[in-house]
Amino acid sequence: MTQRIYNFNAGPAALPLPVLEHIQEEMLDFRGSGMSILEVSHRSKWFEDVLDDTTARIKRLLKLDDRYHVLFLQGGASMQFCMVPMNLAVAGKPVDYVDTGTWSTKAIKEARIQGLDVRVVASSQEKEFTYIPKEVPSDGKAAYLHLTSNNTIRGTQWRLFPDSAGIPIVCDMSSDIFSRIFDPAPFGLIYAGAQKNAGPAGVTLVIVRDDMLERVPATLPTMLKYTTYVEKKSMFNTPPTFAIYVMGLVTQWIEETVGGIEKMEGVNNRKAALLYDYLDSQNFYRGTAMPDSRSFMNVTFRLPTEELEQKFIKESLASGLGGLKGHRSVGGCRASIYNAVPTEAVQALVDFMKEFARKNG
Amino acid sequence: MTQRIYNFNAGPAALPLPVLEHIQEEMLDFRGSGMSILEVSHRSKWFEDVLDDTTARIKRLLKLDDRYHVLFLQGGASMQFCMVPMNLAVAGKPVDYVDTGTWSTKAIKEARIQGLDVRVVASSQEKEFTYIPKEVPSDGKAAYLHLTSNNTIRGTQWRLFPDSAGIPIVCDMSSDIFSRIFDPAPFGLIYAGAQKNAGPAGVTLVIVRDDMLERVPATLPTMLKYTTYVEKKSMFNTPPTFAIYVMGLVTQWIEETVGGIEKMEGVNNRKAALLYDYLDSQNFYRGTAMPDSRSFMNVTFRLPTEELEQKFIKESLASGLGGLKGHRSVGGCRASIYNAVPTEAVQALVDFMKEFARKNG
Repeated sequence: MTQRIYNFNAGPAALPLPVLEHIQEEMLDFRGSGMSILEVSHRSKWFEDVLDDTTARIKRLLKLDDRYHVLFLQGGASMQFCMVPMNLAVAGKPVDYVDTGTWSTKAIKEARIQGLDVRVVASSQEKEFTYIPKEVPSDGKAAYLHLTSNNTIRGTQWRLFPDSAGIPIVCDMSSDIFSRIFDPAPFGLIYAGAQKNAGPAGVTLVIVRDDMLERVPATLPTMLKYTTYVEKKSMFNTPPTFAIYVMGLVTQWIEETVGGIEKMEGVNNRKAALLYDYLDSQNFYRGTAMPDSRSFMNVTFRLPTEELEQKFIKESLASGLGGLKGHRSVGGCRASIYNAVPTEAVQALVDFMKEFARKNG
Repeated sequence: MTQRIYNFNAGPAALPLPVLEHIQEEMLDFRGSGMSILEVSHRSKWFEDVLDDTTARIKRLLKLDDRYHVLFLQGGASMQFCMVPMNLAVAGKPVDYVDTGTWSTKAIKEARIQGLDVRVVASSQEKEFTYIPKEVPSDGKAAYLHLTSNNTIRGTQWRLFPDSAGIPIVCDMSSDIFSRIFDPAPFGLIYAGAQKNAGPAGVTLVIVRDDMLERVPATLPTMLKYTTYVEKKSMFNTPPTFAIYVMGLVTQWIEETVGGIEKMEGVNNRKAALLYDYLDSQNFYRGTAMPDSRSFMNVTFRLPTEELEQKFIKESLASGLGGLKGHRSVGGCRASIYNAVPTEAVQALVDFMKEFARKNG
């Protein structure tokens, strides 16, 4: 008998149950091919249809015009930390980064390894990355401005993206892509490891605007050039076929079952409100992010003591609520409430939190 | 009703049916976690067990001693074409490559992009890569000697690896790893995209010997350094968890169901003999590789005319034999008979070939 828990993992994270059931259903015979999706050639009509369908869904969901190319890479966001400066730096120009914690910090480190003139134009480090900077100064000279849209560890999120004064924004959207509406126009490049909101670990979505491709140095290794993926439609070599297939099913679920990004954002707003409203209504738990910078994807909070936190994590798991431990670098508790986490899971969490506070407060 | 075909794809390729059934069985609940393997955290005990078990199985199957590190990367063999020279070149030393066709040629190109002194010490280009060079000269000066153990397109394979006179061999074993016994001692690094003999597309196995790591330049981007994967046990960032899990199941199948690499090699030898013995017994089909260089993984052959080849591919598929079309760069026919392709599939192919020759000869 299959028993499923409510999964609050930060990534790899919950997938929609209908998606998992669909994968299970056709595991031995993919759409009449007589093969598993794991066994079909990436050059076959079967997989080409998957790739084309997934690409089209992503373009529709994010309202991307024809200037944007949808690419499927490997190596996670961490590989993009080095590929972005390799491909998009411009000789004689600085590159600007905003540091909102761990992932931004790592992206900055990789740009510096390449010897670039990296300017950290804004940072929330002095307050332990508990907020998103209000001001992002720009002198109009940078090759690009790099942002991390959502910080999974600190539970912060750009609720509105800053005005970059015409400088192309490069954004790591690994943990909130497909969760809300945004205007793609200011973005020169968007990247996202799939394993939070978009699919399983093993594929990285890269969305790049045409004009950015002119910057790509011809001398880069073939697999490290964005132009290779554009020219070969992400099939210079064998792509991660299964991970792309699952991303296709997830985007289909957002479009057809949820009803699109607007509906998805509505659900996400309600889930976040459920949890934050409860946090704000009591004194046992304490949210760690500043209210105006709170993430609607990762809700981070502390209990009165570390002992109580351990007890909370243990007892919540025993009650069928998994993945509530905070990131090992900061401790505490964290509920990741990505797209695939249903409202009833968040309601069950709030109910558990109330009961736990009553017993231990 | 699930109907499976005999799958002769070159990659992504057939997986053992019990592996697919196992994946299907536990898709919604991975070993009592209440989550799919696609949803469990890479930092959880569940996934750590998968990683440790898979690593241990690979070490046992390939008889690797403690000097060898087993790593899980992304980007396929094509990413290794650039990572190998980045990591293993030595200042002032040339790098030696043997060119046995497409994949070797691409590896050579990537080393040249990096400005290295690349010496092609042997090549079979003058005979359209239909054979494996007999002599591989070495003056003992190279940083490494690069080989491609099996050429999927030309249907050739190093039946015995050459004596490299103490120079560390770097070998792309994407299409024949786990298919036969070999002595790992001369190898400084082995890499293999998983999607032929080892699992699904989306994970690249890298096996690196300790002494090679001393060469890795400190200035490389973090994700492009082998040392990062060694130090962080392939978990600097989220690894391709599902692909590693499937590789674990495939290596478990080789160990426990087939009975180890020796048994696997025996089965593969019998499968190859079935097909090559038939090819050698008649004049309708013509094998394209020189007999002493024939691959036991990819059997390439031509029919009297291209029209007949098209008819053969079409009618074989209608008879439940899939993936027999040759690589688009060379045409003709190809049967990939990797580990997971059962003997009865090869027998069915031979039977079909006989019947087709009788009708069309």
